[in-house]
Amino acid sequence: MERCGRSLELAANGKKVALVSGGDPGIYAMAGLVYEMARDKAVDCEIEVIPGIAAVNGCAARLGAPLMHDFAAISLSDLLTPWEIIEKRLKAAAAADFVVAIYNPKSKKRVKQIAAAQNIFLEYRDQNTPVGVVTAATRHNEKIRVTTLAKMLEEDIGMQSTVIIGNSQTFVWQDKMITPRGYSDKYALK
Amino acid sequence: MERCGRSLELAANGKKVALVSGGDPGIYAMAGLVYEMARDKAVDCEIEVIPGIAAVNGCAARLGAPLMHDFAAISLSDLLTPWEIIEKRLKAAAAADFVVAIYNPKSKKRVKQIAAAQNIFLEYRDQNTPVGVVTAATRHNEKIRVTTLAKMLEEDIGMQSTVIIGNSQTFVWQDKMITPRGYSDKYALK
Repeated sequence: MERCGRSLELAANGKKVALVSGGDPGIYAMAGLVYEMARDKAVDCEIEVIPGIAAVNGCAARLGAPLMHDFAAISLSDLLTPWEIIEKRLKAAAAADFVVAIYNPKSKKRVKQIAAAQNIFLEYRDQNTPVGVVTAATRHNEKIRVTTLAKMLEEDIGMQSTVIIGNSQTFVWQDKMITPRGYSDKYALK
Repeated sequence: MERCGRSLELAANGKKVALVSGGDPGIYAMAGLVYEMARDKAVDCEIEVIPGIAAVNGCAARLGAPLMHDFAAISLSDLLTPWEIIEKRLKAAAAADFVVAIYNPKSKKRVKQIAAAQNIFLEYRDQNTPVGVVTAATRHNEKIRVTTLAKMLEEDIGMQSTVIIGNSQTFVWQDKMITPRGYSDKYALK
């Protein structure tokens, strides 16, 4: 918020300002805050968002191709969102067979939500559904794990992790997580 | 499929091959097909996916910041997916207040699905919910429109379009579409 405020202040004074954000500024990141602050402070300047590689893009790539079909991104952080809404979304996404990318799965103080999410998915999906856990994607301490819905909590999940839960069609091949492009076999290759 | 097959053939013969895909190869694109074909043809080679800017990233950036909260991506193409599943996902995403990015909204032959999607969302969301239509993002013929759920079908929607439907919190400011980061006002800036 401090960086956003300072950037807008400089821009309002006629400077060209580049505000740097990790990942894609438009996905759970800083672009929205810039617009919200600009509106609230009535700052009149042109704002351009340059897209980037979000965790959902980067982590999917490291796991193989888990997002080839319809997917949802859900943050488990209940700091700004009531848990009831998060829970509703988890149930909706699980029931409608979306591949789901879970952001903010766990922090030191917030550990129950990921277990609750697992339980919700276990109601709708096979316990052997592939699950990928990517921590610190592409960084020196990167960790990539392909596991299952039943065993996902055995993995090290933290602040830098994104968890991707496959849909009913997702399979594992050579330790990669792959979701086919459809439900029919029209695309069969033989 | 021809390019995928040829790439795998070259790789199987020991070549390093770069297969180029538009957008992010991992999001409704070619990465999954490469893995599926490699598995089906039992090709033994190392495959690395390099993530890119998917339509969902690029179109969101052009619209402002519509994806700052939980979102879902849904393709309306029923070529490989039964319409019943697509419909179920539209309803689930609409009911659980996800921002939704609609891929493949319409083609010359396939025109009913986007109207069906609009009707589903109108059951759950206000008719003034902001909707963004981005066609040919960042290309010479780019077209960006911010409209409403009620009026979205008046826009030119085609093969190169992505439609982003806001959630209950999304607002329009200076013709940009912005979704706040949460539901509370804990982040209020004053």
